[in-house]
Amino acid sequence: MKLATIRIHDSSTAAVVLPDGDYLLLDAPDLSSLLQREGWQEEAARQAAAPEAGSRKVSEADVELLNPLPTPAKVICCGLNYSDHILEMGRDLPEYPTLFVKFADTLTDPEADLEISASESVDWEAELAVVVGTMLSGADEAEAAAGIAGYTAANDISMRDWQNRTLQWFQGKAFDRTTPLGPVLVTPDELDPEAGVDVSCFLNGERMQHGSTANLVFSAAQLLSYISTFTVLRPGDIVLTGTPGGVGMGMKPPRYLADGDVVTTEVGGIGRLENRIRIKNTP
Amino acid sequence: MKLATIRIHDSSTAAVVLPDGDYLLLDAPDLSSLLQREGWQEEAARQAAAPEAGSRKVSEADVELLNPLPTPAKVICCGLNYSDHILEMGRDLPEYPTLFVKFADTLTDPEADLEISASESVDWEAELAVVVGTMLSGADEAEAAAGIAGYTAANDISMRDWQNRTLQWFQGKAFDRTTPLGPVLVTPDELDPEAGVDVSCFLNGERMQHGSTANLVFSAAQLLSYISTFTVLRPGDIVLTGTPGGVGMGMKPPRYLADGDVVTTEVGGIGRLENRIRIKNTP
Repeated sequence: MKLATIRIHDSSTAAVVLPDGDYLLLDAPDLSSLLQREGWQEEAARQAAAPEAGSRKVSEADVELLNPLPTPAKVICCGLNYSDHILEMGRDLPEYPTLFVKFADTLTDPEADLEISASESVDWEAELAVVVGTMLSGADEAEAAAGIAGYTAANDISMRDWQNRTLQWFQGKAFDRTTPLGPVLVTPDELDPEAGVDVSCFLNGERMQHGSTANLVFSAAQLLSYISTFTVLRPGDIVLTGTPGGVGMGMKPPRYLADGDVVTTEVGGIGRLENRIRIKNTP
Repeated sequence: MKLATIRIHDSSTAAVVLPDGDYLLLDAPDLSSLLQREGWQEEAARQAAAPEAGSRKVSEADVELLNPLPTPAKVICCGLNYSDHILEMGRDLPEYPTLFVKFADTLTDPEADLEISASESVDWEAELAVVVGTMLSGADEAEAAAGIAGYTAANDISMRDWQNRTLQWFQGKAFDRTTPLGPVLVTPDELDPEAGVDVSCFLNGERMQHGSTANLVFSAAQLLSYISTFTVLRPGDIVLTGTPGGVGMGMKPPRYLADGDVVTTEVGGIGRLENRIRIKNTP
């Protein structure tokens, strides 16, 4: 099942994506709200299979896709998680995941322009994001796997100058409205990252990154289990699983995003984010 | 004016601390809620100056102090911010603040036991915390100063083993219910950190840390201004301003907290946090 948060008639609503591409509206303002409800998945699946009389469908053409999860309490990101990229850099595989944090405010819509000021080295990082479906505290890997609501795509757009101002990356990773998320949430019965899901990033149509989640050092379930050792995760929380090789900072010379560039993030089985960069540095 | 969140008859309420030490109850469940209200400060000051007939007062003896701010959306911490400690370590003063993040879940009550498992190097970091009173976005230093709701005390209890597992400190800084906060919020008319506020930490009664906020490299207002460059701050958000020298990790050999130890955090003009450590490592 695929779900989305869509804008229709100036308001936001959760929806199921039907096989024909139309959207069946659900009675929740967004997926962050929907996921708080006990039994949301069964309810959505039942409605999608047999829409009730009077249920509202809208066609793809009338829909604007929004950030599916606008109000996570926790957005936790893993760095250095693609084994092929780590090994090709001559590094050892890490024993522990490198974790840092974004805010709900950092997220934005799947096709939003990304307006960035005060940075001169804006970089791309296409990622698979995992969305928590149940409360997880001290969860083992199997419990964590069972607690996954689904997967979506993200681009951890990074202000490298700010990221490298100090030893802690956070300030370069948490500029408001710079991490596009979406376009849909895909439930785990339809997507198996451990079997391998393609993650790509294109800059103005040219592929810059291409990896498979089969090469994740820490799987989605392992990340949730590890994080739940020290902090509780709740429905709607989001964990970004890291990015494959091919970011701009790693190029010689480094290549950064310019005003007007279009960054396309593609994750197999989920879809594409397409974001135009708007650099607004004051002279 | 001093404000608190207190427990009385099994429920939580915001309160003004009266000059005689009694508490005047306000119509809000906690200070996080109170600070969302336009004009909260004038209302609280007016009630404290001339309690209305029928207003509820409770005596100090009947009150349990809670975490004053249970639901901040953002808890941002600054590392390496006391100039005397940085200079004595032979380092240069930093050009930019080192920032990392905690969650609302990381916070706990002023006298809570701190139950910690899975870490064998638990350390103390007494800090002044600044609380945001108005929305701040791209705020200059004067706007940020005017947007401070007040100050409170915190102890950024740090799991050094987890903090140093990777380059990013976050995972050692965000164990649930390990950062005590409180005991009260003191408004800026009663406390001037730039003039110098004493920050101390005691371990079982022995003073381990002692610094003055006059030595902060980045003042409270400078930190809020800097952060607001990349992410919006809202009423009730919290910024921890860093810790002076004297933490356990810096000793030779390092000294860490043991089960039963009592950590006392004292900030001049604000008060004391007193927390017993409960280490629950499984063998």
